[in-house]
Amino acid sequence: MNDDVTRTTALETPLDPDLLAKIDAYWRACNYLSVGMIYLRANPLLREPLEREHIKRRLLGHWGSDPGQSFVWVHLNRLIKRDDLNVLFVSGPGHGAPATLANSWLEGHYSEIYPDRSFDERGMLKLFRAFSSPGGIGSHCTPETPGSIHEGGELGYSLSHSFGAAFDNPDLIVAAVVGDGEAETGPLATSWHSNKFLNPATDGAVLPILHLNGYKIANPTILARIPHDELEDLFRGYGYAPHFVEGDDPETMHQRMAATLERCIADIRAIQANARANPENVTRPRWPMIVLRTPKGWTGPKEVDGRKVEDYWRSHQVPIADAVSNPRSLAQLEAWLRSYKPEELFDEDGRLIEPLRALAPEGTRRISANPHANGGALRQSLDMPDIRDYAFEFKRAASVYTSPTAVLATFLREVIRRNMTSFRLFGPDETASNKLDGVYEVSGKRWIAQTLPEDEDGGALSVDGRVMEMLSEHTLEGWFEGYVLTGRQGLFATYEAFVHVIDSMFNQHAKWLEKAKTEVGWRAPVPSINLLITSLVWRQDHNGFTHQDPGFLDVVTNKSPNVVRIYLPPDANCLLSVADHCLRTHDYVNVIVADKQPHLQYLNMQDAIVHCAKGIGIWDWASTDQGAEPDVVIACAGDIATMEALAAVEILKAHCTDLKIRFVNVVDLFRLLPDTEHPHGLSHRDFDSIFTRDKPVIFNFHSYASLVHKLTYNRTNHANMHVHGYRERGNINTPFELAIINGVDRYTLAIDVIDRVPRIAGSSAHTKEWLKNQIIESVRYAHEEGIDRDEIREWTWKD
Amino acid sequence: MNDDVTRTTALETPLDPDLLAKIDAYWRACNYLSVGMIYLRANPLLREPLEREHIKRRLLGHWGSDPGQSFVWVHLNRLIKRDDLNVLFVSGPGHGAPATLANSWLEGHYSEIYPDRSFDERGMLKLFRAFSSPGGIGSHCTPETPGSIHEGGELGYSLSHSFGAAFDNPDLIVAAVVGDGEAETGPLATSWHSNKFLNPATDGAVLPILHLNGYKIANPTILARIPHDELEDLFRGYGYAPHFVEGDDPETMHQRMAATLERCIADIRAIQANARANPENVTRPRWPMIVLRTPKGWTGPKEVDGRKVEDYWRSHQVPIADAVSNPRSLAQLEAWLRSYKPEELFDEDGRLIEPLRALAPEGTRRISANPHANGGALRQSLDMPDIRDYAFEFKRAASVYTSPTAVLATFLREVIRRNMTSFRLFGPDETASNKLDGVYEVSGKRWIAQTLPEDEDGGALSVDGRVMEMLSEHTLEGWFEGYVLTGRQGLFATYEAFVHVIDSMFNQHAKWLEKAKTEVGWRAPVPSINLLITSLVWRQDHNGFTHQDPGFLDVVTNKSPNVVRIYLPPDANCLLSVADHCLRTHDYVNVIVADKQPHLQYLNMQDAIVHCAKGIGIWDWASTDQGAEPDVVIACAGDIATMEALAAVEILKAHCTDLKIRFVNVVDLFRLLPDTEHPHGLSHRDFDSIFTRDKPVIFNFHSYASLVHKLTYNRTNHANMHVHGYRERGNINTPFELAIINGVDRYTLAIDVIDRVPRIAGSSAHTKEWLKNQIIESVRYAHEEGIDRDEIREWTWKD
Repeated sequence: MNDDVTRTTALETPLDPDLLAKIDAYWRACNYLSVGMIYLRANPLLREPLEREHIKRRLLGHWGSDPGQSFVWVHLNRLIKRDDLNVLFVSGPGHGAPATLANSWLEGHYSEIYPDRSFDERGMLKLFRAFSSPGGIGSHCTPETPGSIHEGGELGYSLSHSFGAAFDNPDLIVAAVVGDGEAETGPLATSWHSNKFLNPATDGAVLPILHLNGYKIANPTILARIPHDELEDLFRGYGYAPHFVEGDDPETMHQRMAATLERCIADIRAIQANARANPENVTRPRWPMIVLRTPKGWTGPKEVDGRKVEDYWRSHQVPIADAVSNPRSLAQLEAWLRSYKPEELFDEDGRLIEPLRALAPEGTRRISANPHANGGALRQSLDMPDIRDYAFEFKRAASVYTSPTAVLATFLREVIRRNMTSFRLFGPDETASNKLDGVYEVSGKRWIAQTLPEDEDGGALSVDGRVMEMLSEHTLEGWFEGYVLTGRQGLFATYEAFVHVIDSMFNQHAKWLEKAKTEVGWRAPVPSINLLITSLVWRQDHNGFTHQDPGFLDVVTNKSPNVVRIYLPPDANCLLSVADHCLRTHDYVNVIVADKQPHLQYLNMQDAIVHCAKGIGIWDWASTDQGAEPDVVIACAGDIATMEALAAVEILKAHCTDLKIRFVNVVDLFRLLPDTEHPHGLSHRDFDSIFTRDKPVIFNFHSYASLVHKLTYNRTNHANMHVHGYRERGNINTPFELAIINGVDRYTLAIDVIDRVPRIAGSSAHTKEWLKNQIIESVRYAHEEGIDRDEIREWTWKD
Repeated sequence: MNDDVTRTTALETPLDPDLLAKIDAYWRACNYLSVGMIYLRANPLLREPLEREHIKRRLLGHWGSDPGQSFVWVHLNRLIKRDDLNVLFVSGPGHGAPATLANSWLEGHYSEIYPDRSFDERGMLKLFRAFSSPGGIGSHCTPETPGSIHEGGELGYSLSHSFGAAFDNPDLIVAAVVGDGEAETGPLATSWHSNKFLNPATDGAVLPILHLNGYKIANPTILARIPHDELEDLFRGYGYAPHFVEGDDPETMHQRMAATLERCIADIRAIQANARANPENVTRPRWPMIVLRTPKGWTGPKEVDGRKVEDYWRSHQVPIADAVSNPRSLAQLEAWLRSYKPEELFDEDGRLIEPLRALAPEGTRRISANPHANGGALRQSLDMPDIRDYAFEFKRAASVYTSPTAVLATFLREVIRRNMTSFRLFGPDETASNKLDGVYEVSGKRWIAQTLPEDEDGGALSVDGRVMEMLSEHTLEGWFEGYVLTGRQGLFATYEAFVHVIDSMFNQHAKWLEKAKTEVGWRAPVPSINLLITSLVWRQDHNGFTHQDPGFLDVVTNKSPNVVRIYLPPDANCLLSVADHCLRTHDYVNVIVADKQPHLQYLNMQDAIVHCAKGIGIWDWASTDQGAEPDVVIACAGDIATMEALAAVEILKAHCTDLKIRFVNVVDLFRLLPDTEHPHGLSHRDFDSIFTRDKPVIFNFHSYASLVHKLTYNRTNHANMHVHGYRERGNINTPFELAIINGVDRYTLAIDVIDRVPRIAGSSAHTKEWLKNQIIESVRYAHEEGIDRDEIREWTWKD
């Protein structure tokens, strides 16, 4: 066996008997509180015999991983005190909140932020009663949980969150407890590779602790049922030095854990010291990690009704279910609770006895009070350049093409340059593909692995690069969430079709924000998650059907209006204005939809700022109604949708000369909702003033048409709204053919206008025929030549 | 080093010089065709000097991984012929279709199914021109690609698809080429653990071949930049015996690959023979896998314009971009093409010369013609029991509670028993939690890892179990897709909130089905993916906000109506009827929404069958309009939504005695769409006959209310539709409190009815006050007692 693997088979004994006894007592207090939360509604300190009336009417909560998690916490406490460490605790095992809550309460911090759940018997009972009870707190680590940045509801993200928190926090050690159930998820399985992106000189450390307690809800875990050597190989293969702490005898295990943790912290410090002495020549170290193998439900009942419980999946939730109805079970529960000897742990007032209290760190060194866990309080505004210095200049609207994301890159480059330790750009191997590679001029791509001379070409790999690229949307989103939840900022650019990969992560983060913002007063606002959705459906004609999916917006619109924003800037200057705004916000998920290909440009910087601030507007220069009541409203949202809508206007101007068209562009999608539904919503009156009360509205939309109907169904003029959008039709096409088969092209729009305006329908029969012929001709040309006709590819506005 | 790891450093030479030369020539033919697809629109065999007119106007396609993939394919061919192997090829590297297409064409199968792209010079040119061209075929393995079951558009699923294909196909060897970019995704990273679920006696084999070509789009890959020992440890840790084939000299590499592949196939055969001799005592073998390290863009241009291309990410797509405009580039392209010596490979007619053709297997042994790749053709109907034998019996509608999924389990148990080699049940550690554990009576949980005596308790682990449990929705969905795409059947039960984890996989599978069904005539229909969405939002009151997300339906409704179905059975017998129907369908994704908790039962089996066949219906027994025009329509979809709507009717019957209520229940959600939009849609006339043209409709919906509006916005009576649904509000609640805060509870519904029916609004002021008091009282009780009031928890229908 390699010498940097330790199984601690020889018993090291760093703890003297007194300290050992105290640590064990502290741990018993944690476990007692965890059981109390699950069961007790009265008699919290068992000062009287346990009666059925003391038991909650509905038993909920998760016992299984609590003792192991508390075990880690109390041992971290010892070294925090000894070495003045700055430790953030991330609890991966989903429903193990009792451990975190117990420790927070014992450290006094819980009562500081929830004074009603005071640090005494009365407060203890209030905590017990609130736990997993209606109107109370959850059984996993929710935003209400002090010391936590990690939502334990959905599994798989503890390690990526931990690395995100450690980035650019050189002083921080993130103790990441990874559940062995969670370890089976894909996102977790690849996030071990995050060590190839952590710079020991400038970032903090992550100490992963795989909690191998053997079981999930009702099954063994894979990693607990493979040979020891295989497990060791796996973590060595992931690049770690695994240390094994295995057993079930508390006394022995305390010594093993104390010795192992000492060694790991020493190794981390040595790695960091080495790197920081020579930061120019950082290489990837073999970071330590711990495999902690303890029984599930450790110290709980060994058997219940003749069935194995401790060290088995039956201890996952509530080990003894019928304590109210079954006197024997009640007695077993009482014996279990009393096995922790609460009378030795808590004083008359119900406070942890003083000698044990002294084991916990103080002030902000308490894990539960670590400032990084309330990262909003550490948040600093970005040093932002003036977007006007990055404006795309042109003479005439709709006459010049450029790539909006390439323009954005020039701005982001300066944002990065000015905020070298607090802003990162995330992308799954697509930063260059998405035309954001302009940022490489100030910073390369983070890479703490082997390099070759050729890596200098095209965006250098660098140990201190600010661009985070890994082909895992899950890991990137997890890093980004960990980064913002600890107060720093960034932007994540990704292909539109594949942002669905992180739908569920988006959902969970939005839920975290909603609770943190509206119900957890002590949490300071955190920077927003900024998602730049690019490589859009309408320019995935060459990649085909699999790359065409603009449906993420539907997922976003289901979340609370308090926390979600959607922007569809029609051109580069609008994209700049929107990005500038988003980077200044907090507590949102901002979704920005903007393509990377060259697109027509419409608004100069000043107009773009005004237009984006309004979020919706009538473009007079593209309208023909001269402020009067129009015959028809042509509306659009999205860059490509806007270009086709404008081209339709131009056709109609030429062919239907007396048609009065109002041209409306929507940047801020939630303007479409009523103001009663979303803070950005328009009043019905304002909406009517733009879309009229009774004129046909032809709406060209970037995404699925039904989304516009979902947002506008109760508007006065909704019956006249005819929305064109992606219809789930595509293959290998030209861009224009793709537009045609989904009905968002200029010709189809023009036909629709003619059909909807009775006044001109009759006189325009000839025009309609011409339009239909254009469609046929365009498709024929595309199939023969493999590209769109020149007049399509190079179309510009005539006026 | 362990002796079961081979680096083939000593050169074994299983190929004699003649065979070596032939294999190399065949491989050159593959590579020539791959380059031809990307570049040529004329002069396919270079019979004349290459001119700019011969080059496509738009250069698209992916060269980088093609040579390596073809290299694998041609070496598989040798052993298929020698040993009569049955090999399915799964191409993981996303955009490497040219390799698959080239081989399919060389085997003649491509021309058999696409006669127009014939096996001669004319057909070759047609293939070249169709590739990545409008109206043609994609640059990744789409449904149009023969021999493929794997959509290469989104990365991460090649290995789970491969294992799904191998399950219950004991004769099959799935050669799974895993891209090293793809290997960074979470879903791929955990799917290596699929080996803990593959039974060597009764399943086929998967031979993973990690194609370490070093680069993604614009970055190195992680696995290519870690030390060799670390890489070896990683795959040993995943439980494989890794074999390394590394180099760039074709001659040496042919010998290495031939030797290694021989050894792997021999190991697979030995493992299988051993297990099949003693199937009762199967243990997990250490399956072989290959790490194939070759240069990206192998055999392509080494440099272009002074920049490294071969063995670098610049060979990912089109290595020489300006062959039309730059004569030097044109010359370089010509030299590259001629380096494969096409004149030695193809005869006068443009067919592969006979001596090389003899290298390919014949008939269905050709990889491109493997029958499993068109699994629909192998599809057999399930042996289905009669659902009436599993009906839940009761005397009176809405008087008895039972768990719908527990009833379903009795039926699924028999489905499993009758279809022991062609049906599997999938679930992420939740089969028991979702109350489907009744199936364990006939079959346990698949587990090819270590076991303990206690594993017998509660659904035994078993080497031949038909229940697939791993805590990875990605892996399960991937297995399931691989299983159905090779013609077998199953059902996947998962928590509603976390089905979002596989949103993107669902999208991609739905897109595959849409294309296969509507545009690929030779693909036979495959069994449907059946998703049972359970542990529903309204009973996640105790798990809290993170577990409350019914939004998957929004994602589903964006996909093509040809391939998606959504059912919300209101009770157990309806669930049976819906499940029975879904298991008989093909080419759909069927989404069934049904909770696991005890719920009121409404319809006997016969009525349930009729109701579900209609998909929507008026429940006369719950209506008070006696067939006349009602004052109000109360509609509902979903089990909990239905119960609350019924309770509202009962309240209104008692308090507003002359109110005429029509009660409508929706099972088949797409009935709400117009028949022009979905095959299950209702005509406007039928819709109006149910929902009236002008009466208020109070619609209690399981999911977000806006989805009903999205589906019904253009209905006659839409302005009168008032939808109640999940409003993204919840925490730790009781079920009824959760209903109240989202407005789907009986009291809120009754108030809404009163408000919407002017005739009774005045006379019901007192009732409204009473209803409001009920709401206040319910919440107060829930917070004090931790449970709902008896009259809520035990509510049954009075009539």
